[in-house]
Amino acid sequence: MKFTPIIDKLPSTVPFVGPEALERRSGAAIAARIGANESVFGPSPKAVAAMREAAAESWQYGDPENFALKDSLAKHLGVTPQQVVPGEGIDGLLGLVVRLFIDPGDVVATSFGAYPTFNFHVAAAGGRLVTTPYVNDHEDVDGLIALAKREGAKLLYFANPDNPMGTVWPAATVQRLIDSVPEQCLLLLDEAYVEFAPAGTAPAIDVGRRNVLRFRTFSKAHGMAGIRVGYAFGHEEVISAFDKIRNHFGISRVSQAAAIAALADMAWVEDVAAKVASARARIGAIAVANGLTPLPSATNFVTIDCGRDGAYARAIVDGLLGHGIFIRMPGVAPLNRCIRISCGRDADLALLSDALPQVLARLG
Amino acid sequence: MKFTPIIDKLPSTVPFVGPEALERRSGAAIAARIGANESVFGPSPKAVAAMREAAAESWQYGDPENFALKDSLAKHLGVTPQQVVPGEGIDGLLGLVVRLFIDPGDVVATSFGAYPTFNFHVAAAGGRLVTTPYVNDHEDVDGLIALAKREGAKLLYFANPDNPMGTVWPAATVQRLIDSVPEQCLLLLDEAYVEFAPAGTAPAIDVGRRNVLRFRTFSKAHGMAGIRVGYAFGHEEVISAFDKIRNHFGISRVSQAAAIAALADMAWVEDVAAKVASARARIGAIAVANGLTPLPSATNFVTIDCGRDGAYARAIVDGLLGHGIFIRMPGVAPLNRCIRISCGRDADLALLSDALPQVLARLG
Repeated sequence: MKFTPIIDKLPSTVPFVGPEALERRSGAAIAARIGANESVFGPSPKAVAAMREAAAESWQYGDPENFALKDSLAKHLGVTPQQVVPGEGIDGLLGLVVRLFIDPGDVVATSFGAYPTFNFHVAAAGGRLVTTPYVNDHEDVDGLIALAKREGAKLLYFANPDNPMGTVWPAATVQRLIDSVPEQCLLLLDEAYVEFAPAGTAPAIDVGRRNVLRFRTFSKAHGMAGIRVGYAFGHEEVISAFDKIRNHFGISRVSQAAAIAALADMAWVEDVAAKVASARARIGAIAVANGLTPLPSATNFVTIDCGRDGAYARAIVDGLLGHGIFIRMPGVAPLNRCIRISCGRDADLALLSDALPQVLARLG
Repeated sequence: MKFTPIIDKLPSTVPFVGPEALERRSGAAIAARIGANESVFGPSPKAVAAMREAAAESWQYGDPENFALKDSLAKHLGVTPQQVVPGEGIDGLLGLVVRLFIDPGDVVATSFGAYPTFNFHVAAAGGRLVTTPYVNDHEDVDGLIALAKREGAKLLYFANPDNPMGTVWPAATVQRLIDSVPEQCLLLLDEAYVEFAPAGTAPAIDVGRRNVLRFRTFSKAHGMAGIRVGYAFGHEEVISAFDKIRNHFGISRVSQAAAIAALADMAWVEDVAAKVASARARIGAIAVANGLTPLPSATNFVTIDCGRDGAYARAIVDGLLGHGIFIRMPGVAPLNRCIRISCGRDADLALLSDALPQVLARLG
C-alpha cells in the first residue's frame, strides 16, 4: 500500500495554527482574537437569522448546483450564473483550480511570501512554484509578468489588496497585469479584501477573457469566515470545469442560506468597512506611539514594520500572546520584519494599546 | 491555457440531480422528499440548538484542526484522535483518499453500479476503474477480493450496508474481506448506513491494520445531510496523510458544533433508527400491495424490484415525480430494474401509497 510519489514526499501539516490550538498549548484563553483577519464586527443579523432558520432544515442536503446562491452572486457581480462558482472558501477553490491545470512539473508563479495555502495546493499537485520578491512591500506586478513569461507559468497568483502586507495597486495597474498575462497562463486574482480597499481598486469585470479568474469571499467583509463560502468568477469555459472535480454537496445548507442573506444586506458590508477604516487608523496610531511603522492598508488588518528581523517580530507576536492577544506575522524575510494585526473592536485594541509597550519594553 | 490532459477529457457534471433542480425543471414543488436517503426525522434538537448558537460566532474560522470534533469522534469510536479525520462529507473524504493513492493508470476496484461519486473522484485522478457485478443484489465479496488481486488494485471500495441496493453482509463476511484484501490494496469500507443495520453488522474496530479505512457520516442516522460532515478512521499513518492535502478550514464552524452536539445525543439516533425500521416495513407493504418486490433493507431506504427493465423503473420514478414524490433508482442494469425509496414520515408514505397504484396503472 503506497501513497503516490508526490504525496509520499509531502509533510502532514496544517498551514495555519489556529487560535484554538494556541489556547490549548498555553492553557490560557485568548482575549483579543485579532490575528486571522476575521471580522470581529460579525455577520449581518439577517445572515445570522437565515442560518438559524436553515439549521432545522439541515436534514436536507444543500442544493448541489448552488442554484439560488449562484443566482444571487451573478446579480451581485453583473454576470450570468454560468460565470460564477461558489466553493468551500477561496482556499477550496484555489485547490480545485490547481488540480484543473497543474500536472507534476508544471510551473506556477507567485510572490515570495504570498498566500501559503495556495502554495500548499500547488505542492499537492506536484507543481513547480517559482517566485519573485515583493518590492517596497508590494507585489511586483512587472516582476510577476516577467516571471510568468520567462518560466512559462500555467498559473499566476496575485492578491489585490495583498495579504500579508495589506498593500494595494490601483485598478489601472491590475488591468496592465491582466492585459500582459501570457495567453497560456491563467491569472488568479485574489480579491478577498477588495471590499475594504479604496474606490478604484477593482478593475472592471470582464468575463469574456478566458485567462483571468477572480476570487472573492464571505469570510472577510461579510464577517463569516466560519461558513466557508468563497466564489470565483470568470469565463464560462473555466467556470464550468469546476464541475469536473468539485465536491458537489460541499457547501452546507446553512452556509448557502447565510451567503444569500448576506448578499442582500450590502449596507452591513459598508458599515463594517467604515468600522474597519476607523480601527485601521487606531492600530496605526498605536504602532506610531510605540515607535513602529504601520504600512498603509487597504484591508481589514494593518501590517506593522517593527524595524528589525524576523526573530524580533516573532518575539513581539509571542509576547502579545502572553497577554492574551492573538496576532500573526508574515512567514519569510524581509516581510517577516513585520507583524500583522487584524482590525479589532475598541476593547481588543485597548488591550493591544496596553500590552504592546510592555512587550517592547521587555524585549528592549 | 490548457487543462491537464485528464481534466480535459472529463465531462462537466453534477453526479446527482438534486430535488431542487427537479422542482426548477417541473415548476412544481416536491411534496414528499424521499429520494436522497436523507433523514426526514431530522437532527437532534440539541444539534439544532448548537447550530443556532454557533451561527452568530460564524465571524470566526472553525478550528482547522477540528480538535474538539476529533476528540468527540475518538471517544465515540474508542480510538485516539490521531486515528480519525472528519471531512466535508464522506464524498469529500473519498475525493481526498483517491488523491492520496491514485496516479493516472492506477487501478481501483468497486462493484458495478456502486456509489457514483466515488467513481467520479477516481476519474478525476485518472484512475482505472475495474468492477465486478452484484450477485443477488449484494456486493460480491469474493468477486471483489479476486478482482483486487487479479488487477493489482490500489483501492477497493465496498459499502456495507450497500447503497443503492440496501442489502447487507454480516460482520463475519466483512471481516473475511478485511482479512483477504491484499497488503498493497487499501480497503475503503463505507458504513454510511451502519446505524440502521442489524446488530452484528459492523466488524470490530481495528485501527492497527494499515490497509483498512472506514467511513461514517452525520448525513444519515444523525439527520444532518446538510451540514456536510463525515469521518474516516483507521491507521494513524493513513489518517495523518489527509493533512497533506485537505482543505483545513473546510468544515464550517456551525457544522463542527452540530456534529459534536449530535454525538452527545445517541438516544436520538436510536429513536430515529426505530422510526426508520417502521417506515421500511410500511414501504415494503406498499410495494407488495402494488405487486412489486421490496428487497430486504439494512438502511434508511428500501430498494424495490419492479420486475421489468430500466426504462420501466425510470417511468415509475418520473410518474411519481408528477405526483410531487421525489425518489431515485440505481444507474445500471440489472440493478436499474429497481426503484429506491427513502424512509419518509407517515404523510410522505401516504402520498406514495396513494400515487404508486395510479402510476403503475397508467404504465400498464
